[in-house]
Amino acid sequence: MIATNLRESQLAEFEMYESNVRYYCRDMPAVLARASNARIWDEEGYEYIDFFSACGSLNYGHNHPLMKRRVIEYLMTDGMLNSLDLHTTAKRDFLRTFREHILAPRGLVYRVQFTGPTGTNAVEAALKLARKVTRRRTVVAFTNAFHGMTLGALAATARQRNAGIEQNGIVRLPFEGYFCADTRDLDRYEAMVNDPSGGAEPPAAFIVETIQGEGGLNSASPEWLRHLAGVAHRLGALLIVDDVQAGCGRTGDFFSFEQSGIVPDLVCLAKSISGNGLPMALLLIKPEWDQWSPGEHNGTFRGNNLAFLAASVAAQLWNDPDFIGSINQSDLIVRAWIDNAVREFGATAKGRGLFSGVSFSDRSLARQVAGEAFQRKLLIETSGSYGEVLKVMPPLTIEPELLSEGLRRLSDAVEVSLSRSRLRTAA
Amino acid sequence: MIATNLRESQLAEFEMYESNVRYYCRDMPAVLARASNARIWDEEGYEYIDFFSACGSLNYGHNHPLMKRRVIEYLMTDGMLNSLDLHTTAKRDFLRTFREHILAPRGLVYRVQFTGPTGTNAVEAALKLARKVTRRRTVVAFTNAFHGMTLGALAATARQRNAGIEQNGIVRLPFEGYFCADTRDLDRYEAMVNDPSGGAEPPAAFIVETIQGEGGLNSASPEWLRHLAGVAHRLGALLIVDDVQAGCGRTGDFFSFEQSGIVPDLVCLAKSISGNGLPMALLLIKPEWDQWSPGEHNGTFRGNNLAFLAASVAAQLWNDPDFIGSINQSDLIVRAWIDNAVREFGATAKGRGLFSGVSFSDRSLARQVAGEAFQRKLLIETSGSYGEVLKVMPPLTIEPELLSEGLRRLSDAVEVSLSRSRLRTAA
Amino acid sequence: MIATNLRESQLAEFEMYESNVRYYCRDMPAVLARASNARIWDEEGYEYIDFFSACGSLNYGHNHPLMKRRVIEYLMTDGMLNSLDLHTTAKRDFLRTFREHILAPRGLVYRVQFTGPTGTNAVEAALKLARKVTRRRTVVAFTNAFHGMTLGALAATARQRNAGIEQNGIVRLPFEGYFCADTRDLDRYEAMVNDPSGGAEPPAAFIVETIQGEGGLNSASPEWLRHLAGVAHRLGALLIVDDVQAGCGRTGDFFSFEQSGIVPDLVCLAKSISGNGLPMALLLIKPEWDQWSPGEHNGTFRGNNLAFLAASVAAQLWNDPDFIGSINQSDLIVRAWIDNAVREFGATAKGRGLFSGVSFSDRSLARQVAGEAFQRKLLIETSGSYGEVLKVMPPLTIEPELLSEGLRRLSDAVEVSLSRSRLRTAA
Amino acid sequence: MIATNLRESQLAEFEMYESNVRYYCRDMPAVLARASNARIWDEEGYEYIDFFSACGSLNYGHNHPLMKRRVIEYLMTDGMLNSLDLHTTAKRDFLRTFREHILAPRGLVYRVQFTGPTGTNAVEAALKLARKVTRRRTVVAFTNAFHGMTLGALAATARQRNAGIEQNGIVRLPFEGYFCADTRDLDRYEAMVNDPSGGAEPPAAFIVETIQGEGGLNSASPEWLRHLAGVAHRLGALLIVDDVQAGCGRTGDFFSFEQSGIVPDLVCLAKSISGNGLPMALLLIKPEWDQWSPGEHNGTFRGNNLAFLAASVAAQLWNDPDFIGSINQSDLIVRAWIDNAVREFGATAKGRGLFSGVSFSDRSLARQVAGEAFQRKLLIETSGSYGEVLKVMPPLTIEPELLSEGLRRLSDAVEVSLSRSRLRTAA
Repeated sequence: MIATNLRESQLAEFEMYESNVRYYCRDMPAVLARASNARIWDEEGYEYIDFFSACGSLNYGHNHPLMKRRVIEYLMTDGMLNSLDLHTTAKRDFLRTFREHILAPRGLVYRVQFTGPTGTNAVEAALKLARKVTRRRTVVAFTNAFHGMTLGALAATARQRNAGIEQNGIVRLPFEGYFCADTRDLDRYEAMVNDPSGGAEPPAAFIVETIQGEGGLNSASPEWLRHLAGVAHRLGALLIVDDVQAGCGRTGDFFSFEQSGIVPDLVCLAKSISGNGLPMALLLIKPEWDQWSPGEHNGTFRGNNLAFLAASVAAQLWNDPDFIGSINQSDLIVRAWIDNAVREFGATAKGRGLFSGVSFSDRSLARQVAGEAFQRKLLIETSGSYGEVLKVMPPLTIEPELLSEGLRRLSDAVEVSLSRSRLRTAA
Repeated sequence: MIATNLRESQLAEFEMYESNVRYYCRDMPAVLARASNARIWDEEGYEYIDFFSACGSLNYGHNHPLMKRRVIEYLMTDGMLNSLDLHTTAKRDFLRTFREHILAPRGLVYRVQFTGPTGTNAVEAALKLARKVTRRRTVVAFTNAFHGMTLGALAATARQRNAGIEQNGIVRLPFEGYFCADTRDLDRYEAMVNDPSGGAEPPAAFIVETIQGEGGLNSASPEWLRHLAGVAHRLGALLIVDDVQAGCGRTGDFFSFEQSGIVPDLVCLAKSISGNGLPMALLLIKPEWDQWSPGEHNGTFRGNNLAFLAASVAAQLWNDPDFIGSINQSDLIVRAWIDNAVREFGATAKGRGLFSGVSFSDRSLARQVAGEAFQRKLLIETSGSYGEVLKVMPPLTIEPELLSEGLRRLSDAVEVSLSRSRLRTAA
Repeated sequence: MIATNLRESQLAEFEMYESNVRYYCRDMPAVLARASNARIWDEEGYEYIDFFSACGSLNYGHNHPLMKRRVIEYLMTDGMLNSLDLHTTAKRDFLRTFREHILAPRGLVYRVQFTGPTGTNAVEAALKLARKVTRRRTVVAFTNAFHGMTLGALAATARQRNAGIEQNGIVRLPFEGYFCADTRDLDRYEAMVNDPSGGAEPPAAFIVETIQGEGGLNSASPEWLRHLAGVAHRLGALLIVDDVQAGCGRTGDFFSFEQSGIVPDLVCLAKSISGNGLPMALLLIKPEWDQWSPGEHNGTFRGNNLAFLAASVAAQLWNDPDFIGSINQSDLIVRAWIDNAVREFGATAKGRGLFSGVSFSDRSLARQVAGEAFQRKLLIETSGSYGEVLKVMPPLTIEPELLSEGLRRLSDAVEVSLSRSRLRTAA
Repeated sequence: MIATNLRESQLAEFEMYESNVRYYCRDMPAVLARASNARIWDEEGYEYIDFFSACGSLNYGHNHPLMKRRVIEYLMTDGMLNSLDLHTTAKRDFLRTFREHILAPRGLVYRVQFTGPTGTNAVEAALKLARKVTRRRTVVAFTNAFHGMTLGALAATARQRNAGIEQNGIVRLPFEGYFCADTRDLDRYEAMVNDPSGGAEPPAAFIVETIQGEGGLNSASPEWLRHLAGVAHRLGALLIVDDVQAGCGRTGDFFSFEQSGIVPDLVCLAKSISGNGLPMALLLIKPEWDQWSPGEHNGTFRGNNLAFLAASVAAQLWNDPDFIGSINQSDLIVRAWIDNAVREFGATAKGRGLFSGVSFSDRSLARQVAGEAFQRKLLIETSGSYGEVLKVMPPLTIEPELLSEGLRRLSDAVEVSLSRSRLRTAA
């Protein structure tokens, strides 16, 4: 009772002075203070295990010690903080490191555009550039897609939301597996575009998440992705992979599309690209499409040097065997838990790598589980059209014991929710 | 010669690996390393005076010591960095401080929406909310307006740029003084909306910059602003002030609209709101318009706690007499220089407060002056339809001697450019 | 009483089986049977004087004897009726006659496009062609404009109506005199288009009615029209005159723009072009803009040969001195009545030539007058934002005595309405 | 040679003075003068057999004697010609006759809207009304659809044409059989609309031709149509059948959808509705959707009384056993020819009833055949994405001998074209 009142008074200021638009804090009503790797402490000192990773923006954990040290040193020496698109030493370090540790080893050649530091801004840049380069207007986006909330990106987002104005220039196709859709649906669209009476304008681009993070952890097969790349190529359209959530290691590889072998024309990165959660977003552009005029897509906060520093550290981790090892270990542990959940709880496995989760036949269960988990000091979120998918998304760097402890709490939460659900059904 | 080669090799990496979209760095080809208040050093150790303030995002100067200390302490104790829209202690501090030091003393009551950390995102949120609340579609924006580069904000931006897709839902009216436009033009629009055959839909909102930063430092009079507020009110439309560049003290007051006495329904803030250049943006909402559904406009980087810390420090400065005094002193010095420029150089004064500048009858002169200034280690930018306006925009906190030194360099640059211009004309 | 019941039963079928969209018949509840020049008889044998001319589509009166004879002869010999855009003898006759009797004497050189037989279709063709030729999108249309009800033309129409979908691509400017607008408003728009930050895309076209028939008989001065033509020319935009209602002799000249001396790039004609009310519409195109691909704007009823026959007769009338004489006489009589109405009734004169009318300070009066006129067996309609303008629009060929008789009935109707209005005001 | 020169001079005037947009006359370069049932004579006296029927607008043949007589009598007695939407005796006759002879016997109850007299105008009215009634924006239209050329209808038309402006508010689905599409594609769309993340807004309407006249005589099965009607109903969307070309008897039934048993919410009629080719168009509206405000969709030529007269005659024919018998006989003869064409020429049968045709594996063949047919004084047109379908579309009332003669000429034309094609392939 006292705790509740205390909490209420702590939360009152947010309710009175912050906009009603706030969302996650309603399901996780704590006032957070400190965090380290996969542990978070609220202002009362309670410790939480983080299976949320700030929605995938903290794949390397909270306050990674190398990043923290680098950022503090920089601040101590009065390093440039915001630099727009001016040249800075920190930006050059990032460009070098990203090329050397991420792009080159994967045989990728991309120009880097520093967009405004939000994923939606990188998507806006991608759509604008694809339309400019092709002189076409239509962009194909998929069912359950999430690409952001500014008007251009919002049009590509599948979830029905109020934009206040019509959203044009998007053709919606079913993602792989949506109501049994497969490569044949891509072929039919290709036929429509090629047919003068097909009623489909030639598209500027296809924008796709290889795994739909917000859309319910729907994962495209390598075959479907390669088929999509072929259709895009034949139609003279650009292939944009929105790797904002699935990229930066979330699937185990740095880019989510590595296993499929496709090479997108444009790649959107944000969330974990800075490594420590500082705002940063990139658009990777195949050199032949880098047809921007100077200043054609600008913005004030494109030069967040603290983020560049942390991002350089993060890029280097991909050559660190310990880091790779810890990802693999985490992957095994999560995989085992999910297999068990399928067997024990009748769950359906969703996603891939450390971008995984489960859904239940009772669509409302996942949200109940997340609520129960919060009671057990485990932060976890849901996704999907009905919030029916539980996203198991700890930092890639989580300690094995902590991961196992989190999964134990999660199993508890599932069991409690399931038995309540059964009681309700029986009643 | 050697210096040039050195510089070229330093810049080569940016040219090869960064997108062609980069802009400011072309006019200011240095690799910046460190900065303090109004001084910047490049990696070769050259010192520059900053009359640019990262496009208005560093009104409090680079690495303000109080902000720097606060940020480092927070990092040392593993404070939460990114927290989405979860509650944190740093956010609560900001909400309190902003209310206490900024809103309350000005008699303003606003809810705070933390949008994605870019000005354009705050504008997108404002447009979306205004359209939702009024159930209308059209937004009035003005000649020379700049509101951002994502699709919704871009439509409101006046400069013709490639969006790749049609931009709808905007009616363009002339800003005060544009081709002699005055309040009568607002009245005529009001009449058109009220006339069933006027051919103008009732608008959702008017969005205005009280001083058009990118558009050439055109400054609206208090009378025109009050007239505009009246028209908006009578038409049932929301008045949005985009104070991204003109706000946060740039005009001498915290909000640019304070002198006019209007109280906008929505206010967009970004750039200098965090105080030290870290990405942050806000939408201030009159409580009656805070009709967002939870999660209706979301984004990952809305919880940049380092920015919140610095923003709290910045807000407190507005009760510090030394800070206020330094603004006033800077204002006097700049004012004197501009008056002199009008007399000596035949320039036209533009803007207001420390958001001032000059234009010349020769439209190309301002850009030449900026180039000459860079040679003299003074960073300054231009704005306006033809880059014809020189923006004198040092940090508000610049030391008087440094300000005077910068203005001396600027006078030199003007003189050299003018005499060259006269030579060309004579030839 | 009996008459009323009879009438009700006569009208019942229309009310039950015809759509609710019907409009004029509500104010003129008779079942019409026969008509000759300016006389109409309903099925009960009552005779009406026609000051309506089927909304300007019967400028040459009902069943003009020459047209009637020509049409019957053609039918008797099994002439082709519908011929799409195939060649027919009737079409060739029209092309020749129109050129010889209308275009050539006025020094005009236009290609003729036979559009679908509605004014709105001619407007759609004009907009489509202007956009194709200029590769631009925006069209300028004016306050109080009426251009039709299909989606493209509806967007240009000023009156707010439900289109069911957003209407884009139109910029609305004030017509001459609208809230004191004058050539300066055109100049300001020109400046905005020429200014890279003016926020106005270069327009494809300006579409204008020289007299706004539906919009309240607002008449543009020759000076304003010439100014408009100059602005359009300088901006590389086409000037479209929508002469659907004002053309075909309504103003006294065949084209409404003849007095101004402008030569539009495109001219839309419909309503009275066929002469006897059969559906027909044309787009006149300056040869250099006739850049249609074959079949690019098609439609089934473009080959209404009965209409072509009557249209040939109508064109020939313009070289008949008796016809010209009767127009002039009618004009004098109407002019005298209007002058008197201004003096006696305090009315305001509107329009020009036989496209004239009056408005009253009491906005609701004109509709009452029209109702009273119907009681007196005079058909007359109103226009304007509030139906506040009474349109005196008899056939050009009306006999002088009948015209005078109609005007007497109209004076009666005005007097009765005015005295009722005064009584109400006094009460 | 002489004939050619003569012809050239006869055509020269059209080429000089008519717009380049003319289309059919290029493939049928004759100047037509007279016509009776299925015979047409050009001005030189040559006789043609008509397998074209003015694109389906003369299903009852040219100058049907009953219609001709009725029209002439009306003209002789000075009947009202154009009456806008005023009541006339001719309109009431039509409303009665259409109800009694067409609607009632089929158990249909519709309100009749007289739209502007073009098919595209009826479609515009349908789309506007569906959007108004449902307060939704999106309309589903199909591959290969043709609905007209004004902006609203053009958006629903599948063939890529220049509209000069973006065309929004349409979702394109595959018609039955398009790239193997079937009812499953309708189901998938239904699922997308019902799924909050499906990315498909609830539609206002589905608009469909049961047989796609311009799109290549693709014929939907009754099962697919019923499935479509079910999907529309469940989604709360209106079902619009565009029966402009397929209706008015072309398939053997008055409405093309009679066999399927569906009852559309809205039906668009034009082309043969007047019976003798005079411009007329209707929108049939289920009474519950007749939610128009008075005057909400207007136009001048909605009251074409000559057309109403002929249309009444046409409606009565549907109770005339001779007329029905002649349709059936024609149907048998055409069926036999098509069966033979499939066997002998390797053609593919297309369409249904007297709305039939053939396509060939060589896509260019049909146009060659049409050219050869014209040489043999047979008028016939092609349709489909590539003009690959030959449309055998004589008047329903064609005399059996003339039909057979026409088919003989057609066989000749096919044979000649086929052997030329084989020669080319061999070469």
